[in-house]
Amino acid sequence: MTATTTAHQQWIYRHQPVGVVGPEHYELTTQPLSMALSEGEVLVASRFISVDPYMRINQSRKPTYNAEPHPLNVVQSAGGVGQVLASQSPGLAVGDWVEGMLGWQTHARMHHSALRRLDPDFAPVSTALGVLGMPGRTAWFGLTESGRPHAGEVVVVSGAAGAVGSLVAQFAKKHGCRVLGIAGGAEKCRWLTESLGLDWALDYKSFRDAQGLSDAIKACTGGVDVYFDNVGGWITDAIFPIIHRRARIVICGTISQYSGGLDEAELGPRFLQHMLYQRATIQGMLARDYAHRMDEMLRVVGPWVQRGEIVFAETIVYGFAELPATLNALFTGEHRGKLLVEVG
Amino acid sequence: MTATTTAHQQWIYRHQPVGVVGPEHYELTTQPLSMALSEGEVLVASRFISVDPYMRINQSRKPTYNAEPHPLNVVQSAGGVGQVLASQSPGLAVGDWVEGMLGWQTHARMHHSALRRLDPDFAPVSTALGVLGMPGRTAWFGLTESGRPHAGEVVVVSGAAGAVGSLVAQFAKKHGCRVLGIAGGAEKCRWLTESLGLDWALDYKSFRDAQGLSDAIKACTGGVDVYFDNVGGWITDAIFPIIHRRARIVICGTISQYSGGLDEAELGPRFLQHMLYQRATIQGMLARDYAHRMDEMLRVVGPWVQRGEIVFAETIVYGFAELPATLNALFTGEHRGKLLVEVG
Repeated sequence: MTATTTAHQQWIYRHQPVGVVGPEHYELTTQPLSMALSEGEVLVASRFISVDPYMRINQSRKPTYNAEPHPLNVVQSAGGVGQVLASQSPGLAVGDWVEGMLGWQTHARMHHSALRRLDPDFAPVSTALGVLGMPGRTAWFGLTESGRPHAGEVVVVSGAAGAVGSLVAQFAKKHGCRVLGIAGGAEKCRWLTESLGLDWALDYKSFRDAQGLSDAIKACTGGVDVYFDNVGGWITDAIFPIIHRRARIVICGTISQYSGGLDEAELGPRFLQHMLYQRATIQGMLARDYAHRMDEMLRVVGPWVQRGEIVFAETIVYGFAELPATLNALFTGEHRGKLLVEVG
Repeated sequence: MTATTTAHQQWIYRHQPVGVVGPEHYELTTQPLSMALSEGEVLVASRFISVDPYMRINQSRKPTYNAEPHPLNVVQSAGGVGQVLASQSPGLAVGDWVEGMLGWQTHARMHHSALRRLDPDFAPVSTALGVLGMPGRTAWFGLTESGRPHAGEVVVVSGAAGAVGSLVAQFAKKHGCRVLGIAGGAEKCRWLTESLGLDWALDYKSFRDAQGLSDAIKACTGGVDVYFDNVGGWITDAIFPIIHRRARIVICGTISQYSGGLDEAELGPRFLQHMLYQRATIQGMLARDYAHRMDEMLRVVGPWVQRGEIVFAETIVYGFAELPATLNALFTGEHRGKLLVEVG
């Protein structure tokens, strides 16, 4: 044990945000590390800690998918990857890599049943928070079970440079679809077409309004069979008028609405008539509904990752101290693929 | 042949409405009746002529389910029921009752293949435009295939006193569901609970806003499993915050938006986050997709009608001259169940 590993640092969620979440809503605490473990428990030293858009949903004042928001004055809950530092579980040995809801803390005392053991030779362990973790599962089941894509169809993905969107777009290409990604900035768009192989990418920042974006998507694709939505708001408004007959719209996220819009609804144009015209479907989905089916996704996507057939970008910020600012950057900044903090 | 039957009257659709459609958009023409028929054709004398909300959709300036709006300067298309006056088809004899897209005219020259022969002993022939016709089919397949109701679930129907809504509500009761109807006016609501046997009925006119209606629906039902929407707008806004997990929302109509809102979208609160929270589905449906499956509906609903187990209200306006005003009344007036014009 070095001195570093015996200091237990935690980011405590102190204040409910009204707008964008950031460092002012958290407090960093330090205490001596307790090595005490009960039967079946392990102590995990965090290595990679996740920031995800759903964290801001959980901070909403109104009921969301949970009846109650994230409690105040406790460690911010979050997924993480780390190494076992001490074990009272026969299934996990010191040095083993694990993934679980470690929270925003340098060390986590966890029951072994809440952890997934990782094979560091299979893929980089950080992928357990991205392509081979919750975002990968979300992308896979959201696309296949709610989107139901077919070869030759047009799939449009919003937030296409993000953790989930960049995978959805590639999974759709694997299905033989023609794929258009919507992202912010010309550089991200170039990455989508040149590195990820998308057919088209559009920079939403270059459009004044939904009509302009809608016209551009229509000009590229002719119309939309599957829309995989991570963003909501005016970008999504652009889609409804150009859906094809029996289009499937997957609501995976509405990140544009998270920094306040869940508590006080933004106004937007009514669009349900388009559902009628095209006999289309909107399906909301959550990663948690597929947690028990992780193996199905890994069986297909794991080999793709191993063979280098999927680009899984990670934007890694160094330093435990950066967690709240990194969460903030999810809503305000520039990143590609999965945004992670590496514990310094 | 009497003098009356030899005058051929037609309502010609002359002007595209901007707001509510009415008599000012039509012109009544009269011409001598031609008895000329080609092989396979029959001449039908109209008896009941339909007015339906979809007619106003077809008058929208923007593309709807049809690429082009209803053409100007032709007879208003519409469903109708009438008797064969002359026949060049071996399958249809003079005096036979038929249903088809006769249009707003006293007489229609039709190919026999575009007509459905009716048995006047099975049920009143006017039901071919209501419970045993397009509205019945819409209610049946919209509820069963898009709504997928189960016994014990809560089904909420907007426009519950209308042609489709009043049937959906009763079909849902047959499924063992608990049913709440939303309608305009205390009298309609009393009819829904007392005559149709609904568990609850709410008069939307007695609420100031969506929040009040939402609270009241929640207080009655505890939450919504299936929402069958004929209305849209603020009434539908009331539903999203109170849907249950995996709720199914059927978009059958958005009549509140038809008198202008299809051309220039009204603003309303964004709600897609609720689809995410509850992993809910919105499904748009159209009667036309089930036209070839009429027999499935008739097999089940026909016997219910014969045994008097379904209340199928008809509001019948007398006089061919009243057609445009009756269409207008669909959007502005008071009626129960299926609104029809009986040719005088």
